[in-house]
Amino acid sequence: MDSETAGLLKRLIARERIAHLGTLRGGAPLVSLVSFLAAPDFSAFTLHVSRLAWHTQDIEKEPQVSLLVAEADDRRADPQTLARATVRGSAVRLAAAGVEHERLKAAWLARFPEAAITFELADFSFWRVVPHDARFVAGLGRTFNLSAAALRAAAAA
Amino acid sequence: MDSETAGLLKRLIARERIAHLGTLRGGAPLVSLVSFLAAPDFSAFTLHVSRLAWHTQDIEKEPQVSLLVAEADDRRADPQTLARATVRGSAVRLAAAGVEHERLKAAWLARFPEAAITFELADFSFWRVVPHDARFVAGLGRTFNLSAAALRAAAAA
Repeated sequence: MDSETAGLLKRLIARERIAHLGTLRGGAPLVSLVSFLAAPDFSAFTLHVSRLAWHTQDIEKEPQVSLLVAEADDRRADPQTLARATVRGSAVRLAAAGVEHERLKAAWLARFPEAAITFELADFSFWRVVPHDARFVAGLGRTFNLSAAALRAAAAA
Repeated sequence: MDSETAGLLKRLIARERIAHLGTLRGGAPLVSLVSFLAAPDFSAFTLHVSRLAWHTQDIEKEPQVSLLVAEADDRRADPQTLARATVRGSAVRLAAAGVEHERLKAAWLARFPEAAITFELADFSFWRVVPHDARFVAGLGRTFNLSAAALRAAAAA
């Protein structure tokens, strides 16, 4: 992946706020919408989800997930040219207090100020998705398979 | 689900052109972006995909899929209020010729005129996802579990 393409990936992940989370539910895939926050070096993707949500119940049982970050449809002629990246990784719940929690909470609220109420609710937790690999479709026919290291390298593009 | 909510679901599925497709790949979820066309009665969601694509290879082995149709992020204050619907169902490949193929091809090209080239390529086929059930999040805290029959009823809303 050249530096121009890496820059496209970096800007996509930095710009989009929502991801489409794939989990396993009863052995079948389930896709749901989540807000996400990428670590600046793309070594982790943080979610803040309720254990009342199906996707949270799913990852409590099976941590393997897929996160699709896609350019929002701007009604261009061909939606297949929308850039998108799929990250595959494992989800782990983070501690509900401590320095890391406070750091993530501040970053989360900076990005999602309307989410303040969720920090008053006992059923919400941070989860960290650590990428195993990624697949970037920069547009029609321009697909790149990336290791976790190559994904981190794109963050520095 | 009241008729106003059913109308929201109907308009969401009618308006959006892309879906986030969850498949099983090596036992783990994979989410990728696809264009889709819903049957007018929501009894089927049609995809036109290449067998070179991972998601097509996945559904050839395991037909259980999930399709998330989400309102495009319009940069509102709280992305959790975006409407979205997850359909779970089974995918089956359709015949590459015949009346049904021609009908779908005409409908597909009316919606995706830039996709004409894909009908010249031997690796593309139509697949039909028949819903088993659906889950509609009309906004924060407004979640509805729908049978396939209830999904079809929304199409008539």
